[in-house]
Amino acid sequence: MTILDPKATYVTLINTFTVDPSRADELLDLLQKATAERMRDLPGFISANLHVSLDRRRVANYAQWRSREDFDAMQRDPEAQVHMREAAGIAESFDPVLYELRYVHASSA
Amino acid sequence: MTILDPKATYVTLINTFTVDPSRADELLDLLQKATAERMRDLPGFISANLHVSLDRRRVANYAQWRSREDFDAMQRDPEAQVHMREAAGIAESFDPVLYELRYVHASSA
Repeated sequence: MTILDPKATYVTLINTFTVDPSRADELLDLLQKATAERMRDLPGFISANLHVSLDRRRVANYAQWRSREDFDAMQRDPEAQVHMREAAGIAESFDPVLYELRYVHASSA
Repeated sequence: MTILDPKATYVTLINTFTVDPSRADELLDLLQKATAERMRDLPGFISANLHVSLDRRRVANYAQWRSREDFDAMQRDPEAQVHMREAAGIAESFDPVLYELRYVHASSA
């Protein structure tokens, strides 16, 4: 379970992969494995949340890191780099963007 | 506060707007107003979570709806359409994609 709360001051990575629909599950499995085997053990990891689009043309990772510095350190980690290269090899393209969470409106229901 | 949990079976909209950095705050304010004045009152609204990229070139809305049908009904709502046209007028482009949340890995910290 992941909590989105602007007071947490995390940095949010939204990485959107464009993929051949026949390879969406393969990419999801690889990202899940990368998270379980390496990302979650790195300093500052808060969460990774893996999504597949209803048309299976996109896979999105909504990931929270404690700080920009922790995110940058993850990108320099050799083992993380192996996983990221594998994901890049399956996807047609990918678009990683770092965000700040500014506002949350949640239903009271 | 928003909770991401694959067991919830919501549909997730990730709408990524590309924007002139000088207009990022204007777009955030408009999306916040649209959520407060209309979206949150529509059936099936769960949450809207507004992000701005660290380089201010993107604004992303991570929104949860109870079902695809509720999302489609929102898109047909005349008042929601006014807000969406205003947002489209500020952004250079936008890319709304509907997702299913498949896996969550959260830190135990």
